[in-house]
Amino acid sequence: MKTIGVVTSGGDAPGMNAAIRAVTRLAYAKDFQVLGFEKGWEGLVTSTFRALTPRSVGGIMQLGGTILLTSRCPHFRKPESIKKAAETLASNKVDGLIVIGGNGSLKAACELSEKTNTLIVGVPATIDNDVYGTDETIGFDTAVNTAVAEIDKIRDTAISHERIFIVEVMGRTRGFLALTVGITVGAETILVPEVKTPMEEILGNIKENSEKGKRSGIIVAAEGVGDTRKIASEIETRTGAEVRLSIIGYAQRGGSPTARSRLLASLFANEAVELLANGQGNRVVGLQNGKITSIDIEKSCKTEKPLDLSLLKMARTLAT
Amino acid sequence: MKTIGVVTSGGDAPGMNAAIRAVTRLAYAKDFQVLGFEKGWEGLVTSTFRALTPRSVGGIMQLGGTILLTSRCPHFRKPESIKKAAETLASNKVDGLIVIGGNGSLKAACELSEKTNTLIVGVPATIDNDVYGTDETIGFDTAVNTAVAEIDKIRDTAISHERIFIVEVMGRTRGFLALTVGITVGAETILVPEVKTPMEEILGNIKENSEKGKRSGIIVAAEGVGDTRKIASEIETRTGAEVRLSIIGYAQRGGSPTARSRLLASLFANEAVELLANGQGNRVVGLQNGKITSIDIEKSCKTEKPLDLSLLKMARTLAT
Amino acid sequence: MKTIGVVTSGGDAPGMNAAIRAVTRLAYAKDFQVLGFEKGWEGLVTSTFRALTPRSVGGIMQLGGTILLTSRCPHFRKPESIKKAAETLASNKVDGLIVIGGNGSLKAACELSEKTNTLIVGVPATIDNDVYGTDETIGFDTAVNTAVAEIDKIRDTAISHERIFIVEVMGRTRGFLALTVGITVGAETILVPEVKTPMEEILGNIKENSEKGKRSGIIVAAEGVGDTRKIASEIETRTGAEVRLSIIGYAQRGGSPTARSRLLASLFANEAVELLANGQGNRVVGLQNGKITSIDIEKSCKTEKPLDLSLLKMARTLAT
Amino acid sequence: MKTIGVVTSGGDAPGMNAAIRAVTRLAYAKDFQVLGFEKGWEGLVTSTFRALTPRSVGGIMQLGGTILLTSRCPHFRKPESIKKAAETLASNKVDGLIVIGGNGSLKAACELSEKTNTLIVGVPATIDNDVYGTDETIGFDTAVNTAVAEIDKIRDTAISHERIFIVEVMGRTRGFLALTVGITVGAETILVPEVKTPMEEILGNIKENSEKGKRSGIIVAAEGVGDTRKIASEIETRTGAEVRLSIIGYAQRGGSPTARSRLLASLFANEAVELLANGQGNRVVGLQNGKITSIDIEKSCKTEKPLDLSLLKMARTLAT
Repeated sequence: MKTIGVVTSGGDAPGMNAAIRAVTRLAYAKDFQVLGFEKGWEGLVTSTFRALTPRSVGGIMQLGGTILLTSRCPHFRKPESIKKAAETLASNKVDGLIVIGGNGSLKAACELSEKTNTLIVGVPATIDNDVYGTDETIGFDTAVNTAVAEIDKIRDTAISHERIFIVEVMGRTRGFLALTVGITVGAETILVPEVKTPMEEILGNIKENSEKGKRSGIIVAAEGVGDTRKIASEIETRTGAEVRLSIIGYAQRGGSPTARSRLLASLFANEAVELLANGQGNRVVGLQNGKITSIDIEKSCKTEKPLDLSLLKMARTLAT
Repeated sequence: MKTIGVVTSGGDAPGMNAAIRAVTRLAYAKDFQVLGFEKGWEGLVTSTFRALTPRSVGGIMQLGGTILLTSRCPHFRKPESIKKAAETLASNKVDGLIVIGGNGSLKAACELSEKTNTLIVGVPATIDNDVYGTDETIGFDTAVNTAVAEIDKIRDTAISHERIFIVEVMGRTRGFLALTVGITVGAETILVPEVKTPMEEILGNIKENSEKGKRSGIIVAAEGVGDTRKIASEIETRTGAEVRLSIIGYAQRGGSPTARSRLLASLFANEAVELLANGQGNRVVGLQNGKITSIDIEKSCKTEKPLDLSLLKMARTLAT
Repeated sequence: MKTIGVVTSGGDAPGMNAAIRAVTRLAYAKDFQVLGFEKGWEGLVTSTFRALTPRSVGGIMQLGGTILLTSRCPHFRKPESIKKAAETLASNKVDGLIVIGGNGSLKAACELSEKTNTLIVGVPATIDNDVYGTDETIGFDTAVNTAVAEIDKIRDTAISHERIFIVEVMGRTRGFLALTVGITVGAETILVPEVKTPMEEILGNIKENSEKGKRSGIIVAAEGVGDTRKIASEIETRTGAEVRLSIIGYAQRGGSPTARSRLLASLFANEAVELLANGQGNRVVGLQNGKITSIDIEKSCKTEKPLDLSLLKMARTLAT
Repeated sequence: MKTIGVVTSGGDAPGMNAAIRAVTRLAYAKDFQVLGFEKGWEGLVTSTFRALTPRSVGGIMQLGGTILLTSRCPHFRKPESIKKAAETLASNKVDGLIVIGGNGSLKAACELSEKTNTLIVGVPATIDNDVYGTDETIGFDTAVNTAVAEIDKIRDTAISHERIFIVEVMGRTRGFLALTVGITVGAETILVPEVKTPMEEILGNIKENSEKGKRSGIIVAAEGVGDTRKIASEIETRTGAEVRLSIIGYAQRGGSPTARSRLLASLFANEAVELLANGQGNRVVGLQNGKITSIDIEKSCKTEKPLDLSLLKMARTLAT
C-alpha cells in the first residue's frame, strides 16, 4: 500500500470533511500518499484529482460540505464509466480507494470493485442513515439536530397560534431521519414511508390530543411519504383546524458537523485506513453494537437496513 | 392611569414575550396593574384576559412565541367586533392598551382607537419590518439571523455540488427581510417585490458570475415576488445548470430572540408605558435615527415604509 | 406497582427534563401515578413532592435544567437522612423510585436501597459520563457539543493571533468530556486526569507542531488535571509564545439538550419504567454495545468506568 | 487613488473578514487595487502584504477571526516603527490605508497619519464597542449574542440549583458589553466600571429579590470592575447563599458574525472606500443616529465614548 485515493460522492453530508482530514492524516502516519478525486465519481472518470497532505486538510473538520466537491452521477454506473474509473485507478497506481458517501455511492463502489485490483473501502456518509451495516452514518446526527432546532422554533408559532404544523424532513425513501427527529421534538404524529398511516389514524390522533387539552401539534413527515401539501390540506378540510406545512430543506445537509458526526468520521476513517493497510478491500466500515467494525460491501449494498418500529410505538406514548 | 391592557396580535414574532415582560414590570413600577388579553384580538372581543404580575412574566424574555397567544383575526375589523372590544375595555376599566403586533394589528388598533376613550399605543413587532415610523421592528433581527444561519448551511451544499440555490424567505408583500438577509449571506442576486427584476437580468447575472469563476450561487427571494418554484424551473431550463429551491419557513417566526430583539422589545415597552403614564395615546413607538420615539398611529398605518434601494446596488457589488 | 417517585439529583444535566417527561408519560400509560420529589435528595428527606401528570410535563423536553430542581446534598448520605428518605417513601406508598443523576446520586440511591422496600432504579444523567454500566450518560452529548461550539470560536482568535490556547472543560475527576471534545475540535494536545502528561511532552508537541508550520494550537484540558493557570503560565515562560487560558464554564451544564441527549433520556426512562413494572429494582439503566439495558446498582457504583486510551493515541495522529 | 491598503489590528472581532471582503470588492469596482497587510501593524512595519482580489476574499464573510491575521503591537507606537510604516506605505505607493480595529489601533493610525501622505481611514471593529464616533462597532452585536446564549444556558443551572451566578463578560475597561448583555439576559444586577456599585447595594438587591420569591439570580459583571472571584466570595460569605462564578471567555471574540455585524462591516467598508475615493483621509467611519457617517480620527481617539447610564436604571426595573 503506497497510494490511497479518496472521493466523496452523492449528496453531501456534514462530516465528510472530517473524514477526508482523518483519512489523509492517518494514511500519512503510515507513509501512504493520498490523492483526492474531485467532484465525486466525475473525478474518477476524468482522472481529476489533487494530492492531499496533513497541512492541506487543516482547518476543515468543522466545515460542512466537502472540499473535494461531489456530484450525483447517474451516468457513472454505465459500464464504460466504470471502465474509465478503473483505468484512472490503474494509471495513477492507486492501491486503495476510500469512497465516502451514501447508498448509491456504495453501490457504484461495489460495481467498480469488480473491475479493478484496487482495494475499495466504503465509508457511510449520508444524512439519510440508510446504509446497511452501520447503526449510524456520518452526517445523520447533524441533520437530526438541525431539524430539531428548527422544529423547536416552529413549535413556538404552533403554540402561540394554536395550530397544527406538518413538518417535512429529508430522508429520501426512508424514515430514519423522521423517526429520530419526531421522537426528539415530541411530535404527536410521525409519518415514515415504512409504515402506511391511514388518514383516519392521523385525524383520530389529532382528535384525541385535542380532547386531552392539547391545542397545537406537530406532525413530522418523511419526504418519502408522499405529497405533504395534500396531507396538510386534507387535515385542514376534515378538522377545520388551521394547518400549516413547513419543509425543512437543504439546511439539513449542510452546516458544521456535530461532535458526534466528527467523531464518527474520524473513527470510520481510522478503520478504513487500517483495513487498507492490512490489505483488505470490498468492505464498508460501520458502527455496530457500539463498536467500529466493517462488513462486506456487496452485503451492505444488497441488504435493506431495517427501521426500528418499536420506537414509533414508544414515540406515540411519549407524546401523549 | 390605573390599569393597562396588553395584547399580542397577528403573526407571532420573537421578542413579543420580552415586550410583555417589560410592559408588565415597567407598569408595576408605576403602580399600574396589567391585564393580558389572550389570543390576540379575540381576547378583546370576548373579554378573555388574565392579570399579569412581575412574577408571572418571569423567565419568558428568552422564549419565542407569545405567552398570551395570538391570532390573525380578519373578522375583527368588522364594526361589531370593534364595538365589542371597546366595551371590553370600558367594562374592565382599562385606561391604556398596548397593542404588540405588525401592520394589520396596528390598523385594527387605529380603528379601535376611534371608538374608545382608552388610550392606545402600538408596539411594532413583526419579522416583516414593514411598519412605518420605525427603522426596525421587534423580531426582525431574530428572523434575519435565523435565515442567515440556514443559508450559511445551504451554501455548503451549493458549493460542494456547484449548484445555484434559490432561497425563499418570508416578508409578506415586502422585501425588508430578503434585502438584509441577501446582503449578509452574500447572495449573488436578491429579489424583492419592490423592484421588478426581469428574468434576463437574473440570467445575465448568473452568466457573469460563471465567467468570473463562480460555480455556485445563492439567489435570495422574498416570498412576495411570486412563484419561486417557477423561477427556479425557468433558470434551470434556460441555463442548463442544476438549480434547487429551498423555502426557509416558519422557523423564521420562532426561536429565542436575539439580544437586539430583546433590547428593542424592552426599549419599546418602556416608551409605550411612558406615553400612557403621560396620558398620550394614538401613538406607535419606534426607532428613528437611532433614538426611541413615537409617531401618530394613523400616520403609521396609512404610510408605506420605503425600502432603501441603494442597498440593493451595494449588494450587487459586494457579491462580485 | 401503583406509585412511582422520580427525583433529579446532583449537578443538573441537559436532558433531565426529557427524562422526567418520559418517566411520567410512560408510567401513566401503565396506570401508575407519579410523584416528583423536589430539590433532589432534600425532597426525599423532607417529603416535599408534587404529582406529575402527562400534561404537567408538557413542553419541557427541550429545556435545560430540571423542573424538579436539584441539589448537591453531602449531608444526605448520613444514616439519619437515609432513614428519613426511607420513611418518606413508605409513608407516601411509593412502590418504585427512579433516581436521575450522576455517580454520587447513584451511590446515595444504592445506600437508600438497603433501607427500603421501595424498588430503586437509577438513570445516569451527568455531563461527566463517568457512570459505570453505560457507554453514555444523559447530558454528555449536549455538553460535548456546547464545548465544541465554543472552542470552534476560540480557534478563530487562536489562528488570527497565532496563539496557543489552553481550554479547560468540565468532567470533575475524569477525562471523558475532555477526550471527546479534544478529538472533535482537533486539539493538538489533550490532557486528562487518567494519564500523567509531563510538561516536556506538552512542550515537545508544541515544538513539533511549530516545525510543521502550525502557528496556533489548542490544548484541551480536563478540570481534573490540576491548575490550568499554572500550566498556561509555564508553557508561556518556557516557549516564549503567547498562551491564553479559557475556561468553558457552567454553560456546559445547561442549554437545550441535543437530539441524542433527548433520545437517550427517553430510552433510559422507558427501560426504567419497564424494570419497575416487572418488579425489578436495584438496577441502573444504560447503553451498552449500542443496546439499552441495565446492571446491578451496586456494581455500577463500586466500579470505575474505564477511559478508552486508544482514542488519545488516535487523537494525536489526527491533529498532526 | 490607485492603491488601497487594508490592515486588521488589535484584538480580533467577528466581522473583520466581512469588512476585508467589502473593502476589496468595493475598491475593485472603482478600479483600485488592494494590498492586505498581514499580522496587524507588524505587516506595516515589515512591509509584509499580499494582493487581495474579489475572488481571494470569496467565502470569508461568515468566518470569525481575520484572514489577514492580527497582533497587539505595543512596540508599534514608538517613533521608529511609525517611520518604518510610513516608508512601507510610500515605497508601495499606497494612496489610502483602511485600518480595521479598535481604540488602540485607531490611535496608532492617528499617529501614523501625521507622518505620511497616505490618506488614512479607520473602521471601528472591536467587541468592546468603545470607539467614540460610532454607536456600534463591528463585532459588538456578535459578542453580545454569544454571551447572551451562554448565560441563557447558565440560567438553567442557576434556577435548578437555586444559586446566584456572577458571570464575567469582556469589555476591557468599559461596560458597553456588560450593560447590553445584562439587560438582554435579564440580569438582576449589572456591574460596569463606569459606576461604582457598593457591596451593600449588591447585597441589598439580592435580599430584595429573595423576598420577592426569586431563588436564583444572575449578576453580569464587566471584566473591568475588578476581581470577580473576590466579589463572588464576599457575596457567598455575607449571604450564606451558594454563589458561582463563570467567566465567558474568548468565545466572545470569535465565531461567525451575526447578520448585524456583517451588515455594519459592509456599510462601514463602503463609507471608507467612498471617503478615500473622494480624497478624504483622517476619518473614522461610524454609525450615528442610525446613519453611516464619519468623524475626524483625532477627535475619535481623544474623546471618551459615554455609556448610557439611563439604561442601567431601566435594567433594574426590568429585572424586578
